[in-house]
Amino acid sequence: MTLFSKIIAGEIPCYRIAENDKFFAFLDIFPATPGHTLVVPKIETDRLFDLPAGYLSELLPFAQPLAQAIQKAFPCDRVNILTLGFEVPHAHVHLLPMNGMADADIMASKQKATPGELEHAQKQILAHL
Amino acid sequence: MTLFSKIIAGEIPCYRIAENDKFFAFLDIFPATPGHTLVVPKIETDRLFDLPAGYLSELLPFAQPLAQAIQKAFPCDRVNILTLGFEVPHAHVHLLPMNGMADADIMASKQKATPGELEHAQKQILAHL
Repeated sequence: MTLFSKIIAGEIPCYRIAENDKFFAFLDIFPATPGHTLVVPKIETDRLFDLPAGYLSELLPFAQPLAQAIQKAFPCDRVNILTLGFEVPHAHVHLLPMNGMADADIMASKQKATPGELEHAQKQILAHL
Repeated sequence: MTLFSKIIAGEIPCYRIAENDKFFAFLDIFPATPGHTLVVPKIETDRLFDLPAGYLSELLPFAQPLAQAIQKAFPCDRVNILTLGFEVPHAHVHLLPMNGMADADIMASKQKATPGELEHAQKQILAHL
């Protein structure tokens, strides 16, 4: 059982943003920028492009209202998407508020957020969802 | 008309990989890694999450066989996705062959490829598509 499956199952606490039958979204506790959210399929597939067709087609539509809420909660030029996947073998898409090309390497400088910062971010995003 | 619309219309040459009614894919001439490909919707929308629902649902299914062909042509741990969007105001998803977290900042070190390198990459990917 991956770390993300334990989070989805409620065995490990998280700052939940949204879920449906196929996906679960929660805050990255090492945010690259405030509002940094992860979208995870509820099945354990390591690589994004190995997901079944139904998951690939529904992922971005699931993420769209979340990205819009994140952008309202944390005003930025746009909310971008990114996969890396070298740390947890369970496909996940990062939703990343960004403001310019200088943010292209923000994943290199992630720092653990405090519970207060995460609770604040969760409340702000949920208020706009 | 954006740079990408001119490429899609054939007004600017490119190293084409695939297209359908909604999307067009071609090689990034400043590849972060060999095989680096762009997937662009055939409508001019600046931000990914402002795309109409039909585009959001079909984008990853369109990209899936391309990512699989890129992975076969340029063996790597996985092909990741990334949007930035600060240079051309026309939504596009980068398909990026990657091998580890050290590749997280590869967008910061892009260099222009030679025509020979791009022709080779195009042939290799098309051979696996």
